[in-house]
Amino acid sequence: MGEVPLSHPRYNSLMGRELLTEAATDGLLADSALIAHGRGEAYDYLLGEATCESARAAIKQSALVMKHAKRCVISVNGNAVALAAADLIRCAAVLQCPIEINIYYRTPERMTALNSRLEKMRNEVSEGGAPTGWNGDWQTAVANVTILGIHPDSKIPNLEGPRANCCSDGILNADVIFVPLEDGDRCEALMKMGKKMIVVDLNPLSRTAKKATVTIVDELMRMAPILLSDLINEISNAPPEWDNKANLDDSLAVMLSQLGK
Amino acid sequence: MGEVPLSHPRYNSLMGRELLTEAATDGLLADSALIAHGRGEAYDYLLGEATCESARAAIKQSALVMKHAKRCVISVNGNAVALAAADLIRCAAVLQCPIEINIYYRTPERMTALNSRLEKMRNEVSEGGAPTGWNGDWQTAVANVTILGIHPDSKIPNLEGPRANCCSDGILNADVIFVPLEDGDRCEALMKMGKKMIVVDLNPLSRTAKKATVTIVDELMRMAPILLSDLINEISNAPPEWDNKANLDDSLAVMLSQLGK
Repeated sequence: MGEVPLSHPRYNSLMGRELLTEAATDGLLADSALIAHGRGEAYDYLLGEATCESARAAIKQSALVMKHAKRCVISVNGNAVALAAADLIRCAAVLQCPIEINIYYRTPERMTALNSRLEKMRNEVSEGGAPTGWNGDWQTAVANVTILGIHPDSKIPNLEGPRANCCSDGILNADVIFVPLEDGDRCEALMKMGKKMIVVDLNPLSRTAKKATVTIVDELMRMAPILLSDLINEISNAPPEWDNKANLDDSLAVMLSQLGK
Repeated sequence: MGEVPLSHPRYNSLMGRELLTEAATDGLLADSALIAHGRGEAYDYLLGEATCESARAAIKQSALVMKHAKRCVISVNGNAVALAAADLIRCAAVLQCPIEINIYYRTPERMTALNSRLEKMRNEVSEGGAPTGWNGDWQTAVANVTILGIHPDSKIPNLEGPRANCCSDGILNADVIFVPLEDGDRCEALMKMGKKMIVVDLNPLSRTAKKATVTIVDELMRMAPILLSDLINEISNAPPEWDNKANLDDSLAVMLSQLGK
């Protein structure tokens, strides 16, 4: 699949598939990660593999909420690292917030592999130059992005097993958490702690999608550069009121219309 | 996941996931197989993870078409073997037809692994006793099931690459082919040869689903025992006229209603 041309109408989808299978080979993913990606592909197909208007609105709202956070953190799992590590590091550099690795099936091998991958990507992002519209010392901004998760010092209350592990400098004391591809239990536990949860979930019917503060129903590789651009370009106004259910219904309507064609 | 109780409301889905990840570890699957399974899971979620009325009608029609075939063959890939090898061997024993392994990403290692798995399962099916309602010498019936594919002697016309390889005793000269989880190009090429294609596809919008003679929009593990029962119990009448598009629309309507809830 290495020769998929950029002009291919399904370039994004095919690249995502390639990145995920490579990440599986590199030991970044749990067994079920590829299956989860496939579920996402199916919902994305129903979205027409495009960022819909309701997703654009949710991304803009997310950018405002993240910019207004006291302490924002970007929480990543294996799939998020495989698909969008570079753009998520860029977002963290713009926000000057940490990235925390938090995975469902936690093993020392996977945590180490994800940490190494993120450190490598942080170097590449630093050398790659500042994103359009951003002013300042990019290399310093990127160097300030801490990668947390490998040495957890806290637990998320009301959550069992290793996925409860977290860092006090990251998830534990954040007021806003951006989590692509979150599991429902953890989203619920973090909401109960009073945190604002921003999630990316292609299934508008999932528990995570319904529970979160802002749900972006979009594909992660496609939405990450839009979020980055909004973080850079949106004026730092207080985020307006947000009706997440109404926004989810709009995304559902796009899928219904696609199925009904 | 080994301890999923039979009473779990999502038992079938969780078992499928476990069988697929085990099969991946055993080298039976291509990299993209788990992703494909995930896509299926998403569509199955929209079906309510149940066999709908339109699927039941499609299964019954399929049983009649298969029983009336001059030469029927069951074509399997890695996912089909992982999920439903035993029931597909039982169906082949009832029909006295061969099973042919035909995979998209053909490697000698995977072909050998799949062949060995099917031979092992054929022994287990033989020793497991006849299915309810079947009369006769079950061990002989099962022993008669030939497993083809590992030594292809023919090519499917209008199809490039190793997936064109097939056997003259199987796919090449069959008039009816039952193919769970088929790829669109191959379905099209086989339809052009004048064959009746019976496919199992959870996405009613896929090219395969739209092209096939009869499309069963259902999960393979769930539909296989129903097909087996219909093959045993349905009276061998000529299959009635079949409007596959109308049946697909009925399955789509189930999904639309689930999404719209």
